[in-house]
Amino acid sequence: MPRPVVAFLTDFGTFDVYVGAMKGVVLGICPDAALVDVTHDLAAQDIHHGAHALAAAYPHFPSGTVFVVVVDPGVGSARRGVAAEFGGYRFVAPDNGVLTPAFDELGAGRVVALENPRYRRAVVSRTFEGRDRFAPAAAWLAKGVPLEALGPAVVDPQRITLSRPEIRDTSIDAHVIHVDRFGNLITDLSATVLQRFVGSDRVRIEVGGTSIDRISGTYSDVAAGDICAVIGSTDAMEIACRDGSAASRLGVGRGAIVSIRRSV
Amino acid sequence: MPRPVVAFLTDFGTFDVYVGAMKGVVLGICPDAALVDVTHDLAAQDIHHGAHALAAAYPHFPSGTVFVVVVDPGVGSARRGVAAEFGGYRFVAPDNGVLTPAFDELGAGRVVALENPRYRRAVVSRTFEGRDRFAPAAAWLAKGVPLEALGPAVVDPQRITLSRPEIRDTSIDAHVIHVDRFGNLITDLSATVLQRFVGSDRVRIEVGGTSIDRISGTYSDVAAGDICAVIGSTDAMEIACRDGSAASRLGVGRGAIVSIRRSV
Amino acid sequence: MPRPVVAFLTDFGTFDVYVGAMKGVVLGICPDAALVDVTHDLAAQDIHHGAHALAAAYPHFPSGTVFVVVVDPGVGSARRGVAAEFGGYRFVAPDNGVLTPAFDELGAGRVVALENPRYRRAVVSRTFEGRDRFAPAAAWLAKGVPLEALGPAVVDPQRITLSRPEIRDTSIDAHVIHVDRFGNLITDLSATVLQRFVGSDRVRIEVGGTSIDRISGTYSDVAAGDICAVIGSTDAMEIACRDGSAASRLGVGRGAIVSIRRSV
Repeated sequence: MPRPVVAFLTDFGTFDVYVGAMKGVVLGICPDAALVDVTHDLAAQDIHHGAHALAAAYPHFPSGTVFVVVVDPGVGSARRGVAAEFGGYRFVAPDNGVLTPAFDELGAGRVVALENPRYRRAVVSRTFEGRDRFAPAAAWLAKGVPLEALGPAVVDPQRITLSRPEIRDTSIDAHVIHVDRFGNLITDLSATVLQRFVGSDRVRIEVGGTSIDRISGTYSDVAAGDICAVIGSTDAMEIACRDGSAASRLGVGRGAIVSIRRSV
Repeated sequence: MPRPVVAFLTDFGTFDVYVGAMKGVVLGICPDAALVDVTHDLAAQDIHHGAHALAAAYPHFPSGTVFVVVVDPGVGSARRGVAAEFGGYRFVAPDNGVLTPAFDELGAGRVVALENPRYRRAVVSRTFEGRDRFAPAAAWLAKGVPLEALGPAVVDPQRITLSRPEIRDTSIDAHVIHVDRFGNLITDLSATVLQRFVGSDRVRIEVGGTSIDRISGTYSDVAAGDICAVIGSTDAMEIACRDGSAASRLGVGRGAIVSIRRSV
Repeated sequence: MPRPVVAFLTDFGTFDVYVGAMKGVVLGICPDAALVDVTHDLAAQDIHHGAHALAAAYPHFPSGTVFVVVVDPGVGSARRGVAAEFGGYRFVAPDNGVLTPAFDELGAGRVVALENPRYRRAVVSRTFEGRDRFAPAAAWLAKGVPLEALGPAVVDPQRITLSRPEIRDTSIDAHVIHVDRFGNLITDLSATVLQRFVGSDRVRIEVGGTSIDRISGTYSDVAAGDICAVIGSTDAMEIACRDGSAASRLGVGRGAIVSIRRSV
């Protein structure tokens, strides 16, 4: 078996010892695991942010990776914990929809409820299931325990409605789903949908009162300080400012609308 | 021998290369070690914060883990560096009291001074003993060098007085010892002491001008925005705000008093 | 072969999933690698900051470590990507001068351009070469692929002019090249140059309107709140404030001049 990978996406931050405690639990069960922090800076209790971050990250990991995704406003309540296997990846999370991208993008898969007490800690804190329920489940999966051993099948896992662009005959309204550390505005518009819409026409993009009249290849195709639209690293359209922050320059953030029209 | 774990708690932050340099030193000595960041965001030079964070984290790690705890206002001075073994765990730190929870909670153990030059770097920077003295000592312990090889026994390691609740006949004054990333107020009152005090009576908790009349099971047992008291993940009472920050809502922080009374 | 180490220095921050995606790519190619975050908080697109951080970190890592250094204002443009081997260390970076300390300090070495498509991802995002070009190259080096396999030799890699103190007959003007998390002012003046200049004379240091009349051994050699000059952990002179921030106290930051004179 290749070295197992356990990758973490949480809203725990790195200020407290919460992430460290989860890792201690994982290493106690599966000492050979490679532990990767994808991010711990998800907006607190923001399931949509978690889902989008997961979608951006998982395709780049080796097959078999176990993702622990903990954004959990319902910690300690009756909501289930789940483990899932889709497309060769494994996922452990509260059953609150944060795994929707895995369910939607990776074809048929399996989901189980984390009910087998053998694969959680003896006492589960009602305020920290990440440590006592999700981390052990992930570690046991990484160690080779089959998904079905963790609990009974779940046929109706929670899903959320992910942001989608509104596509009309003559225009598309895309939405900013994330503002990254550089101030780039990542939208929900994929390169494929954009290309199909624009075809061989010219494009006119409006955001925050500014117009952009082309898709650039990369940031440095425009002059320093200029706003541009590019196809970013997740194959989605993003609005950027060369050597600056588009978010600050345009005064817009998550949820903002980016309008795309064909121009002749 | 199972894969050794070296876990770091420091006040170095992640902005500078200090933590990376320590890890480079550890991997040069013990390449198989699993390195875990517990936190690098301890308040600068705050020994009490370090001690409380250590107490919250270590019980969740596998036996044998080596904790490197560097909060070190006296770096480069005559204060000793120490290594300790308590309850199957190992600890390396400046001798300034930051290891007090290990000394207090884990029964009999052994402490030695880091005096054997073989297990530190040839030249020790007087401003960065973390890299040149503590990291090598931790790596050698992780590699299997026995504690006693590092230096002579220390019989009087520094201790600090950890925060304790003031328990009276009819009330307890607990203290906020940590405000976490979510704004939860972690107190020094353990579930055991609380339960013994309250017995079968009802409880009345006062903090920041607000009253709470029960211990909730978890955050989502109250309405969004409401303040609650729960037993948190370290088995201590914490004051929280569902879907919000108790610290902001109540305007209180570390050191604040949380009063508990029996009510009839 | 000992366990390979891949160490990261980037300006990607830890808020987004960029670093996680790079690590997923590395582990897909070289599952046994130990991954170390040196820092992801380099100032955005600041090549000088990257170069200085690399210089401070690399000497502390084991021979063979592969450093991935991504500060890349020209991402996706025609600028080359390079891999280099100097002094037993390997480096992967955009060819923008960020590797200058390795070229300058480690004697003769070799540099190649990352042109062999076998050692990058099939499709390279023009906005994220860190994930698609640099991470794979680093992983293949860590796995044992020889440097020359990655592409043709580069004889003229980009260099930048690193900050140097201005040395005159009777004074030195050093520059603050970094303000660390504690507010210490790290200068470009090495202990060796300082010692040669001062000899057996007394020294007088001026910075931010304050005078310092000696080099202290460590921070705690002065009283709490006092400003001192010490030889820091990179063997450079730094200005510090015991139990405080020299940057805040003196109101100076990166680029500030620290003047050294002999006094009699």
